Amino acid sequence: MQKRQLGPCVTFFPQPTTLVSTVGIGGAFDVMTASWVSIVSKTPPTLTVSLNRGRLTYEQIRDTGCFVVNMVPAKLAGEADYCGLRSGRDRDKLAVSGLTPVKASRVAAPLIAECPLNVECRLLREVELGEYALVLGEILEIHAVEAAFGEDGGIDAGVFDPLVYLGGIREYWSLGDLAGIAYRDGKRFYAGEQGP
Amino acid sequence: MQKRQLGPCVTFFPQPTTLVSTVGIGGAFDVMTASWVSIVSKTPPTLTVSLNRGRLTYEQIRDTGCFVVNMVPAKLAGEADYCGLRSGRDRDKLAVSGLTPVKASRVAAPLIAECPLNVECRLLREVELGEYALVLGEILEIHAVEAAFGEDGGIDAGVFDPLVYLGGIREYWSLGDLAGIAYRDGKRFYAGEQGP
Repeated sequence: MQKRQLGPCVTFFPQPTTLVSTVGIGGAFDVMTASWVSIVSKTPPTLTVSLNRGRLTYEQIRDTGCFVVNMVPAKLAGEADYCGLRSGRDRDKLAVSGLTPVKASRVAAPLIAECPLNVECRLLREVELGEYALVLGEILEIHAVEAAFGEDGGIDAGVFDPLVYLGGIREYWSLGDLAGIAYRDGKRFYAGEQGP
Repeated sequence: MQKRQLGPCVTFFPQPTTLVSTVGIGGAFDVMTASWVSIVSKTPPTLTVSLNRGRLTYEQIRDTGCFVVNMVPAKLAGEADYCGLRSGRDRDKLAVSGLTPVKASRVAAPLIAECPLNVECRLLREVELGEYALVLGEILEIHAVEAAFGEDGGIDAGVFDPLVYLGGIREYWSLGDLAGIAYRDGKRFYAGEQGP
């Protein structure tokens, strides 16, 4: 496979498109788009969000010690993109985009009602990374849209329709087809193993 | 939107399916599947991989100070899944899965030839997270499949066909349709803003 070297840059691994909702000391809500988001631990359940340290979202997380990471469904790509273009210092992004903040159960930051998955987090610690801060949040509670649960308790990811972001090339993509089941499909290679 | 509370758990934000390739002190290569991967900074370009601290991959990264993060295309879902099921302590996963290690340009860890994007990293630091370690890697070089580049220099993400992993529900998904262009589609909300 012929390849081209790009040098050191930020690249386009598929990442989640999320809205990070926060609250300021005075009680005002804000929201911004983030795709540099990852689950990083089960012990305890923890996620990271990397934020530019000049962002209002970062200031509010430090001030109030909490935030909510909301999954963006594909149909809200435009709204999510808007929330990445403007700053909450200048605009009421929730009002302009029509997104609805609702009360969370464990933290003061709001859930975004239109998002099918909301993850309530408390600030655990942060790691400075040049102009960015890697914010580690302990997951305290998760809200998932009821319509996605089947009678057997299984979850239909199609109901969430999560929007994927490809950084570097700056494209939003929807999910296509189920391509495999983890912890199962790889077992077909066991037959080719030698030894015990 | 009616929702169900799941309690604190690891959830299914879309994450990249990657193969992390490493080299041990003795020169033997290993590879494992990782989806807790994220770009986290541009200053300098940095990514994170969260690894269970008992993994051979983690041991080799600490021993040799480098690793490569390889993008898994949808057609290699089974091979990638296999590399998450077994340990390199017991098996030669590259040989069993038929994946080909090739020489990188800046680090001793190998690229995986069949992966359309390879990101060479040097270990910057790590953050302990219970049973896991969040490994921060400075991106030193990136190799991208030549066939994805158009005459205008643009990149066709469809050629990469990156495999998305939904943790929690343990499903691999391919990408579907282009759902939007970032830093552009949100501008349609500007007309609804008030004030300057």
